[in-house]
Parts: sequence; C-alpha cells; structure tokens
Amino acid sequence: MSDTLDLLKTLISRPSITPQDAGCQDLLAERLTPLGFSAERLDFADTQNIWLRRGQSQPLLTFLGHTDVVPTGALTAWDSPPFEPTLRDGKLYGRGAADMKGGIAAFVTAVERFLKQHPDHQGSLAVMMTSDEEGIATHGVVKVVEVLEARGEKITWCLVGEPSSDKRIGDVIRVGRRGSLCARLTVIGIQGHVAYPELAENPIHTFAPALKALTEEVWDQGNAFFPPTRLQVSNINGGTGAENIIPGELEVQFNLRFCTELNAETIQQRTRAILDRFGFNYRLDWRLSGQPFLTASGDLVAATHAAINSVTGYEPKDDTGGGTSDGRFIAPTGAQVIELGPLNESIHKINEHIGVADLETLSAIYEQILVNLLVRA
Amino acid sequence: MSDTLDLLKTLISRPSITPQDAGCQDLLAERLTPLGFSAERLDFADTQNIWLRRGQSQPLLTFLGHTDVVPTGALTAWDSPPFEPTLRDGKLYGRGAADMKGGIAAFVTAVERFLKQHPDHQGSLAVMMTSDEEGIATHGVVKVVEVLEARGEKITWCLVGEPSSDKRIGDVIRVGRRGSLCARLTVIGIQGHVAYPELAENPIHTFAPALKALTEEVWDQGNAFFPPTRLQVSNINGGTGAENIIPGELEVQFNLRFCTELNAETIQQRTRAILDRFGFNYRLDWRLSGQPFLTASGDLVAATHAAINSVTGYEPKDDTGGGTSDGRFIAPTGAQVIELGPLNESIHKINEHIGVADLETLSAIYEQILVNLLVRA
Repeated sequence: MSDTLDLLKTLISRPSITPQDAGCQDLLAERLTPLGFSAERLDFADTQNIWLRRGQSQPLLTFLGHTDVVPTGALTAWDSPPFEPTLRDGKLYGRGAADMKGGIAAFVTAVERFLKQHPDHQGSLAVMMTSDEEGIATHGVVKVVEVLEARGEKITWCLVGEPSSDKRIGDVIRVGRRGSLCARLTVIGIQGHVAYPELAENPIHTFAPALKALTEEVWDQGNAFFPPTRLQVSNINGGTGAENIIPGELEVQFNLRFCTELNAETIQQRTRAILDRFGFNYRLDWRLSGQPFLTASGDLVAATHAAINSVTGYEPKDDTGGGTSDGRFIAPTGAQVIELGPLNESIHKINEHIGVADLETLSAIYEQILVNLLVRA
Repeated sequence: MSDTLDLLKTLISRPSITPQDAGCQDLLAERLTPLGFSAERLDFADTQNIWLRRGQSQPLLTFLGHTDVVPTGALTAWDSPPFEPTLRDGKLYGRGAADMKGGIAAFVTAVERFLKQHPDHQGSLAVMMTSDEEGIATHGVVKVVEVLEARGEKITWCLVGEPSSDKRIGDVIRVGRRGSLCARLTVIGIQGHVAYPELAENPIHTFAPALKALTEEVWDQGNAFFPPTRLQVSNINGGTGAENIIPGELEVQFNLRFCTELNAETIQQRTRAILDRFGFNYRLDWRLSGQPFLTASGDLVAATHAAINSVTGYEPKDDTGGGTSDGRFIAPTGAQVIELGPLNESIHKINEHIGVADLETLSAIYEQILVNLLVRA
C-alpha cells in the first residue's frame, strides 16, 4: 500500500459532498504544516477554503483544487459504497477518486518526496483548496483570490489537479478554458384560445424561426488554441398544460461556451441582432459564468510537457475543451494556469474510480514538475 | 319582468359548474312535461343528461344544449356575484347568461308560446340537455346519441343554442364546425453536459427546424364553407432546469382545427412526413377530439335564415369558425345541425351577460323557426 493510495483512501472516506469539506482540508494541513507550510483558513459563508504556503519568495507555484465531490446518485447502483474506498481490478473505487481527491493525494505525496530531496528549493510552494467547486462556488476560490490580490500576494504558476487525462495519465492537459455565458429569454405573446389564433399571438410560433437561427448560428471558427464557440439551449418551457390554450409567454435558457475570438458583449449584441430579425417582443437577461483563459506557452507549460514526457515517454496534447474550472479565477491575476489530473471518464458517474498505477504515475509527474520549476539545474 | 327573463334568472341562480346540473334539468322537465313532453333521464357516471320529447312522428326538431357552466374565475373580479343574476344597464349579468342558459330560457318560452298557437303542429319536438359540455364530455351528448341511434330514434333537425352571435342577435349562425385533432410529440435525444454537446443529442436543437416547418405548413386553403385548417402548438417543454445539462427529451403538444378538405389520417401522414424530413427519433400520439361537420343548406338553414330575417330585418352570416360544439355528435347521425344563440363576447369571462332585449329577440326567432319548420303553410 503506497503512501499516496493510503492518503487517497482516507480522503475518499470523508463524505465531502458540496459544500461540505468533512475534514479533508484539516488532513492536508496536518500533512503539510510539519514540512514548513503555514495554514490559513479563509472560510466564507458555507464554504471552507484553505491557503497553505511554504516560503515567502517568488516565483510561487500553487496547486489548486477542491475537496468537495458531487452527490453519489443512487447508492444501490454502486458496486461498492461510494464513501468506502474499495480496490478492485487494479482500480480504487469511490466518489472523488478521479474528481479530484486522486490529484490531491498525488500532489501531497509528491511534495513530501520533493521536499526530502530539495528542502532548499527556489521560490515558494502553495496549496489552495476549496469545498465548493462543484456547486454555486460563489464563496470558494473566487473569494480566496480576492484576499490574495488585495494583499499583493501573486501566484506565478498554478497547477490545477482537475482530471484532464483521456486514456492515459497526462495524455491531455488543459492550457485554458472557454468562457461560459448564460442567457434567460422570455418571448412575449398574447394568450388565447387555440380555435381563435387570430386573437392571440403564439410565442412558440413566433420564436420558431429564431430558435432555428440561434441553433444554426456559426459564432466563430475557433482558433489555434480553442474549439469554436458553441450555443446550447438547455431549457424551453411554454404552455398552460391545457391542449386548447395558446400560452402568453415562452421561457428559454441557453448557454454559450466561447473562445478568445469573442467576448460576452459581442455575443450579446449578435444574439439580440438574431432575435430582432424576427420582430417579436422579448426580455433577455445574461449571466457571465466565466471568461475564457489561456496559457499558450511559458515555463509552466514547458515544465509540464517535459515532466510528462520523462515519466511516461509520450507528449501531452494541449486542450481547451470541456467545461470550466476554478483556474478561471486565477488566470486574470496574470498567473500561468495548467490543468493536469486523473482520467476523467468516470467523473460524476456511478462507480467513479482511478487506476492504482495511474495514481502513482500522476504523483511522479507532479514531482517532476516541481523539480523542473523549483530546482536550478 | 318577462317569462323568459324570469326563467333565465332561475337557471343562472343554480350554480351548475361542470359537471354539476344543480337542478336545471329538473326545472326544464317541470316546465315541459305539462305541455306533453315525456322526460327520460340518461345519466352516465358523473354527468346528468335529459331527453324530453313531444310526439312520436317525423320530422323531429331537437333543441340541443348544456346546463353546465365554466368556473367563475376570481369572485372578487365580478361586479355582482356570478350566481346572483343582476340587471344592470339593460343587461342581465351572471355565469351562464350567454353560454348558454340564455338560449335555454329563450327556447323554453318560445316552445310554450308556439304550442299555445299550434298545439297540433306536424312532426315532433325534443329537448336534449347535458351537464357536461364544457368539460371532458365523455358522458354527455355522445352517450345520449348512442342510446338514440341504438333504438333507431332519428333527429331530422338539430338547433343548438350555443352563443353564435357576434354583434347583434342572429347576425352569425354556425352551419358547421371544424374538426379537432390533438397530438403529443416526444422528441428523443441524448442527455449530456452543455460543454460536451458532441457526446449528447440536444432534442431542442434537432427539433428547431421541424418546429418552424410545422408552424409554417399550409395545410389547405379552406373552402366555400370553412376557414383554412390551422395548427397551433399549445405546450412545449424540455430541460432539467439546470443551465448546464442538455436534456434527453422534448415534449410538444399541438392541435389542428381542420376543415372538410382534410381528414385525421391525412393530417397524421403529412405531419409524420414533415417530421421525418429532419431525421430525428420521436414518439407521436394522436387523439381525435371531433370530426368536422357541415350543414350547407336544407330546410333547417332556410327556416333559420327566414326567421332571423323576419324578426330582425337582417340576414345572418353562415359561419364555421371558432371552437367546437356538441353538434359534432349529432351531425354523423345524418341530422341537419345549426347553432344559433346569444352574443358570445362575454362567454367564459368575468361579468358574463346577455342583453335583455337580445334575450327577447332570440326567443322570438326561435319561435319563428318552430313555425317555419313545423306548421304547414
């Protein structure tokens, strides 16, 4: 039983469903403060956050992650209980194994091994953890970053332990993420009787061509780093339930994942232009969930590529697809941000797991990144 | 206070919200049995129906109607209580005044006056009433007609007292009604995450061009008697409520009011053809609410036109628009069916009413129709 596997089992067994932390951050503090890390709690509302730092000088390498996990889903569907970490067929099963307690355990033991070899490394090391990344996240990393920025504490490199890998550990790293923009649209018509459509204005009918136009719009072609911006309608609701009533309103919710070719304002302008082509009355509200960010090159990318290559023998693919991460709060401070973690195939699903060998490989890669960045050759 | 107004007040004061009859049919039996009508109750489940008939010979003229009324809506919105008939500004206010107790009262007193003058008229007279026309109506007129057909009792002419008039009593009569066909469509996609649309299949997106095609389809041009067939989408619902989930299904309900140019089968075929153009999986269920029916000419139309003309001086317009009526159950038996009743502007609304003078005019027209059809010149 390796150190890393042992630590991961302990973390998994603490049922930290968002925004619960269930003592995970305390455990990290226990492991890291003896090695010279200061531990600072930065809790807000129902969310627990911790900032652990060793050293005061620049450059500062920070490992970012979350201790919370998503709900389990139907307990009876799991082959073993989600909070009882179980080894089976070379894999460790449990909620959070991949997303992202595997990454946390891999990094903590990597730090322990690294500091044994290089206690006088250059720069500083930090670990930032939140107990709300999976949920609303309004009191998580966004708040911790506000505190650090206010006191001028700058992060140089941020390594996010989110599960980036596809088929093999380190085959994919995220060098950025798309922005996320949410819209709520209300199409306004006039309620009436189905037999008298001329006395009503059916918002479902008036919106039909606009829905087609919105879903067919080509927003951009993407660029060298990002896939194209895409819109998805998540909810559409109109009608009283009665079969003979024309409703007075139609509610639509949609989301855009956008790349650096566009910004929120441009998307809003273009959306209004599309809707206005069809001449109906509407209300439209927006919520910007996150800006796009990108770390196309630099020391962190180079160090990560080299570490993966030297440990595994292959080169990672630099990717910016998928959802978003808390890295979006770190990037605007000027830090370089990279995401590297376990395989993501089982995240948020029943029987979430991580390969035991993969866990060790990940920890070895993390250790090599530390060497590449903090040890003068 | 006229006989008709008096009877109408009594009917209105009986709160017969569907499928309650509240003693209205008993009142009609009390008024008509002394004049030689036999009274036969044909109740089914929660619905009360009555069949009153005077005479055994053909031809048979039947007055068809319903004693039930729609709910009142917010009581505080009424200027006077909906079940306390109140005279104001030459109008009688109360739920059912126009739809359709006004027609019932007008016909009953017309029959009383007619029989005084012509006790030995040719043919037979009948009155058919149900306490569920406004609701599900599965135990109303449809059931009474089954009984009559089973025993070979044939109606020649059916006068329906539904409120057909637009601005003046008798300015519009219905000579038919469109059919009504309801559809429930489920568009089948694949649920997924908004950030990974390539792993999902958004049914809202796949349905968008089909929705446009359905709502823009020209089903027919109508004909000399009917307005064009029209489709209206009444309900559309898809989505989990979450902004980042692509739903797996989309539910759509729509209704077609169709004329005699089409039948239900043709509409279903054409709808499937439209949907199939877009290649998505779906489930589609249909419910035929009523077939179209038409009485383009004949004795009943002629007698009604002549009666309106002689009482009011103007010619009625023959119309087939609006919703449907229980006449749809009578027409397939081979009977001629006409609808003539009060002004419909206030039906189903707050402060429903009928003009006092209009009530008398309507009764006079009904009496003249009886003369035109049942008295040999």
